[in-house]
Amino acid sequence: VSQAGVEELVGRALQRDRRALARLLTLTESVPESAAAIDALMTPKAGAARIVGVTGAPGVGKSTTVSALLSALRARDLRVAVLAVDPSSTATGGAVLGDRIRMLGHATDDGVFVRSLAARGQLGGLAAAVPLATRVLDAAGYDVIVLETVGVGQSEIDVSSLVDTTVVVLAPGMGDAVQSMKAGIIEVGDVFVVNKSDRDGAATTRREIRSAVRRSLEHGQWQPPVLLTEAVRDVGISELVEKLDCHAEHLAASGELTRRRRVRVRREVEILVLEGVRLLMARNDDLVDGVTGRAVSRRQPPHQAARAVLDGLADVIRA
Amino acid sequence: VSQAGVEELVGRALQRDRRALARLLTLTESVPESAAAIDALMTPKAGAARIVGVTGAPGVGKSTTVSALLSALRARDLRVAVLAVDPSSTATGGAVLGDRIRMLGHATDDGVFVRSLAARGQLGGLAAAVPLATRVLDAAGYDVIVLETVGVGQSEIDVSSLVDTTVVVLAPGMGDAVQSMKAGIIEVGDVFVVNKSDRDGAATTRREIRSAVRRSLEHGQWQPPVLLTEAVRDVGISELVEKLDCHAEHLAASGELTRRRRVRVRREVEILVLEGVRLLMARNDDLVDGVTGRAVSRRQPPHQAARAVLDGLADVIRA
Repeated sequence: VSQAGVEELVGRALQRDRRALARLLTLTESVPESAAAIDALMTPKAGAARIVGVTGAPGVGKSTTVSALLSALRARDLRVAVLAVDPSSTATGGAVLGDRIRMLGHATDDGVFVRSLAARGQLGGLAAAVPLATRVLDAAGYDVIVLETVGVGQSEIDVSSLVDTTVVVLAPGMGDAVQSMKAGIIEVGDVFVVNKSDRDGAATTRREIRSAVRRSLEHGQWQPPVLLTEAVRDVGISELVEKLDCHAEHLAASGELTRRRRVRVRREVEILVLEGVRLLMARNDDLVDGVTGRAVSRRQPPHQAARAVLDGLADVIRA
Repeated sequence: VSQAGVEELVGRALQRDRRALARLLTLTESVPESAAAIDALMTPKAGAARIVGVTGAPGVGKSTTVSALLSALRARDLRVAVLAVDPSSTATGGAVLGDRIRMLGHATDDGVFVRSLAARGQLGGLAAAVPLATRVLDAAGYDVIVLETVGVGQSEIDVSSLVDTTVVVLAPGMGDAVQSMKAGIIEVGDVFVVNKSDRDGAATTRREIRSAVRRSLEHGQWQPPVLLTEAVRDVGISELVEKLDCHAEHLAASGELTRRRRVRVRREVEILVLEGVRLLMARNDDLVDGVTGRAVSRRQPPHQAARAVLDGLADVIRA
């Protein structure tokens, strides 16, 4: 796609054309040059949206919670975009979410945009793709962007580093509370939701999470609420929306919003620098290959070879 | 540790002082500058060792197989080093292996060296640490270096990209063969071991692996054998050693050894370049922070900010 093509798509996306928006997002994922061009055109228009992450183990009812939240926000006439991120290679989670949204009759509602992002199998892939996708949706006029991710320990992407507010969804029993503590989920949650609260053990799970949250809390900060919901019947969803509002106010008033966004941008820039170096190495294959040859024959140890590649790339950058 | 200190440790490690060797390996893991210095001193002495990876799911008897293999290689008077790599943060696998080796009476045998490496929680951490550790052990005069890793799908490190020969250990039943195919383990195995072969289903598992291996095989290449072992009773271990010899001969005769080592070094160099850039960013915090500030206020989109950081780092490298 040419620069003119990108500009045309951007123009249409800013006019709320959802197909142009979908096309732009595809470009940011697949073409590095387009990503930079889209970033340059869209980012100046971004900054007004609230970004909410929803995470939790498989089976706790994350997608149902997101759907219910979506309806509640739409009832307030807010435009909502959902990014469903699946760190495994097959994007089933996103597909299931898409089906659910369609079932709920949001497919024809142009105040709703749903997209799934699958990991591209490269280091930093999703961590680099999500922030730009979020800004593009922000610029396209969505008021709330919900980032839904599976939280499953080590391989999960760190959703809290990508959003303003992190909602952690749990289900009663199954040692979920204990698991969450082990996985470091307690530390990242701004709002906790014990979903499927009609089940046995909901009150116990709530109590466990509450005392765990209290332990990890420092004075004077936000006290993360622990809500009971039955997302499938819309129970507790209005309380969730209220708590999200409270947290947004807290973020703005305390200066925490600025701090979080600054950390987020720094992390994105660092990842993009590393991606840029990776790209430079691919494009300067002769340079890397020549140095590798010396390292293979042990005339130059790999650490020294890496230094030589860095020097060579610096020359390329400066040229 | 000063350059003189490193040189002294290297001298002692080359004289087969195991404590100096252990200290060197700790330095390669914890101090980037020391890693480069040790690489420069040790790598010219390396290149003679055979590097064998042993991988498989938890519970198949990997550590027992490694112990039995170790005894068989020692019986041939080969010096053997074992690197137990645990991609999770707690290095229990390595600790268990260490205990087993001690039980077998290898603790006082200075022809044996056992070390566990835990993931350091950073991208590229183990992938950068293992190749250097391997070369250090190689230079220190170990004839065979066994790299033991847990193979558990996504989060596993790709052992086949770090060794000359990959041994995949399985156990009968439990759908292990099918799991392995899904996890892409069939593609990386040079030798397959169905351990605990006294159990029901060993012959079936062997047959399944054999037919899966055949399907993924290209003509004229190595035919990966599928062996039955009971490592705990030393059954089948001499056949395993034989097959490892056959594979070493195949690698040398076919030119595959050179190809694999070249790919390995290139990968290491690329990882070290990225680690170098990460280090440069940490050391030039003012540069990255200033650019981040412009990106936070949206005066410069992150893709453009990353480009500015790269330009700045190029100047630093050239200075």
